[in-house]
Amino acid sequence: MNNKIKEFQKKLVKLKLPLALIFSTKLKDPAFFYFSNISPEYALMLMSSKFFPRIYCSSLDFEELKASSRIKPFLQFKKNTLEQIKKLTKTHKIKKIGVNFSYLTVKELKNLKKLFKCKFVDISDELLNLRAIKTNDEINIYKKACRLTEQIWSKALAQIQRKKLNTEVQVKEFIEQQIKLINHAPSFPTIVASGKNAAIPHHVTNNDKLNGFCIIDFGIRYKGYCTDVTRTIFIGKPTNKEEKFYNLVYETKECAANKISSGEKILNVVKTARKHLGKYDKYFTHGLGHGIGLEIHELPNLKETSKEKFENGMIFTIEPGIYFKLKFGIRIEDDYLLERNKLIRLTKAPKKLVVV
Amino acid sequence: MNNKIKEFQKKLVKLKLPLALIFSTKLKDPAFFYFSNISPEYALMLMSSKFFPRIYCSSLDFEELKASSRIKPFLQFKKNTLEQIKKLTKTHKIKKIGVNFSYLTVKELKNLKKLFKCKFVDISDELLNLRAIKTNDEINIYKKACRLTEQIWSKALAQIQRKKLNTEVQVKEFIEQQIKLINHAPSFPTIVASGKNAAIPHHVTNNDKLNGFCIIDFGIRYKGYCTDVTRTIFIGKPTNKEEKFYNLVYETKECAANKISSGEKILNVVKTARKHLGKYDKYFTHGLGHGIGLEIHELPNLKETSKEKFENGMIFTIEPGIYFKLKFGIRIEDDYLLERNKLIRLTKAPKKLVVV
Repeated sequence: MNNKIKEFQKKLVKLKLPLALIFSTKLKDPAFFYFSNISPEYALMLMSSKFFPRIYCSSLDFEELKASSRIKPFLQFKKNTLEQIKKLTKTHKIKKIGVNFSYLTVKELKNLKKLFKCKFVDISDELLNLRAIKTNDEINIYKKACRLTEQIWSKALAQIQRKKLNTEVQVKEFIEQQIKLINHAPSFPTIVASGKNAAIPHHVTNNDKLNGFCIIDFGIRYKGYCTDVTRTIFIGKPTNKEEKFYNLVYETKECAANKISSGEKILNVVKTARKHLGKYDKYFTHGLGHGIGLEIHELPNLKETSKEKFENGMIFTIEPGIYFKLKFGIRIEDDYLLERNKLIRLTKAPKKLVVV
Repeated sequence: MNNKIKEFQKKLVKLKLPLALIFSTKLKDPAFFYFSNISPEYALMLMSSKFFPRIYCSSLDFEELKASSRIKPFLQFKKNTLEQIKKLTKTHKIKKIGVNFSYLTVKELKNLKKLFKCKFVDISDELLNLRAIKTNDEINIYKKACRLTEQIWSKALAQIQRKKLNTEVQVKEFIEQQIKLINHAPSFPTIVASGKNAAIPHHVTNNDKLNGFCIIDFGIRYKGYCTDVTRTIFIGKPTNKEEKFYNLVYETKECAANKISSGEKILNVVKTARKHLGKYDKYFTHGLGHGIGLEIHELPNLKETSKEKFENGMIFTIEPGIYFKLKFGIRIEDDYLLERNKLIRLTKAPKKLVVV
């Protein structure tokens, strides 16, 4: 991550920002953890091309986090800390300070402005772009995280096949228990939606018995990083038409994946996927995918309105789906890594519909 | 809660704000749930004295939350919703809009400003003050929530006494399991700190064996509302001096409680408590207490810098503590309700140190 700190410092030079303040407050800015490896209740990170990065951490967490912080000096946040930083800005004639507008409330910025006689400039895009290209360490974390995610799914599927899990809530609870058993956490609340419920992308898992198409959308948080996969299985006997719909969604995912290479425009890939769905395109009611990382939704954003291109080092989901209101829904989602111009599938949804 | 909506509308009139927008976005504003009884992924509430309150909710949650929303009309958030509201502001010649600066990111406000040609005014204080005085419904919820909290503690204590729970993590996990078993959630991550660890107010619960003074700080979230209690027990045989320290902290809590009445200045109560601690005051390193509600820290803030007074309808904690670095710590916290000028203790920390 030291290279990322250097890269960010270069960005600051380019933006003519001698100082950036990154906060861990009410909204825990993932950029704080990204650089420092810690996520305190209240802390402040100074980033500058002029002097070493440093952290001021509130006394509540100070002792606990001292050893884990990647950034040193690791100092205690005191009553006069902001005053000291203000002095620093005066000494160095700093007129502009970068802060992350996406992780600072209006009130917090207002309070900063009261104290500092500086202009505050948004650095959210720079931080997001930095995080979109994963480091080798992050890629290794993802390879492991995706293996663990697949293992959790195998266990859940085996229990469904043995008829040990028969309702949506049972599947959700089993998956979340298994994640806890390996000492990790879900990256978001597991979604299990079967029958008519599967036609609602954000259905709230309930006590309904599993039947027909059953969508299971879950992920784990491993060393801070989120995985996100969706499996669709069928409980009962699918008709030929139903199997064909599964195949269509699966092929749409493959078709999008085949189009991806470094430098390819994202919108072209989304268009290709939508074209593949043909007349069923209108039943595909959400984005084609999204970057994953410290947050469950990061850059790149696989949307038709995207102006970005795919780049090596990106890790993202591809998740086409079709939803027939009050009937059924299908979604298949895998995690991918674009590395040395090769798209690597990190998780493996089955090509053939799994029937239980 | 309808009275609270009316009260808030009156505040808007007083502030000369014809419109307030309350958002449920990245930061779920508790005020959104407060008025509506729902907490969507993305939604927007219009509050005005000029027209009926209404909600626009994103399609992801729309179907699920339609029935539970206390505020109708409950409409679907569409691509042109903000444009429609903009038209509304033009029709009604609205120049100023109230928003909650504490629950809106700088970026979100920036985007609103791009669209609306209005001034945005902070309504965070008005919302916090409104929530500080609980309604009868909220008081009833708290009475039940506190009973449940006490039951959880009784179960945990029984297990500790039977030597079934021997480490910090075991106590934490048992408490959180029991909370889950009654279909609720912890209001914050349970803190268990024993021996030297108890001297660190925000100690991260670990595998250390319980010994000496053992602080257990936890709460449940019941129907959205947070309880927050701390119990200190002793594992082993306390010296006379140690028992006296427990009594001192307990009496400090009682002494503060006895001072409280409607109209009493908060700072006077804090001073009284600190005075009672005498020369040990300097080992009391945090606030005396805080309001509880939809958030774990609300108004009133029991600090010496407070300018507020106690009022009927307030629900808050009193939690004195003393911490001797590298030695031990004691904290005792109960939840209280001030009702018809009478202070009611909703939870009951034992007067006599519990020795296991």
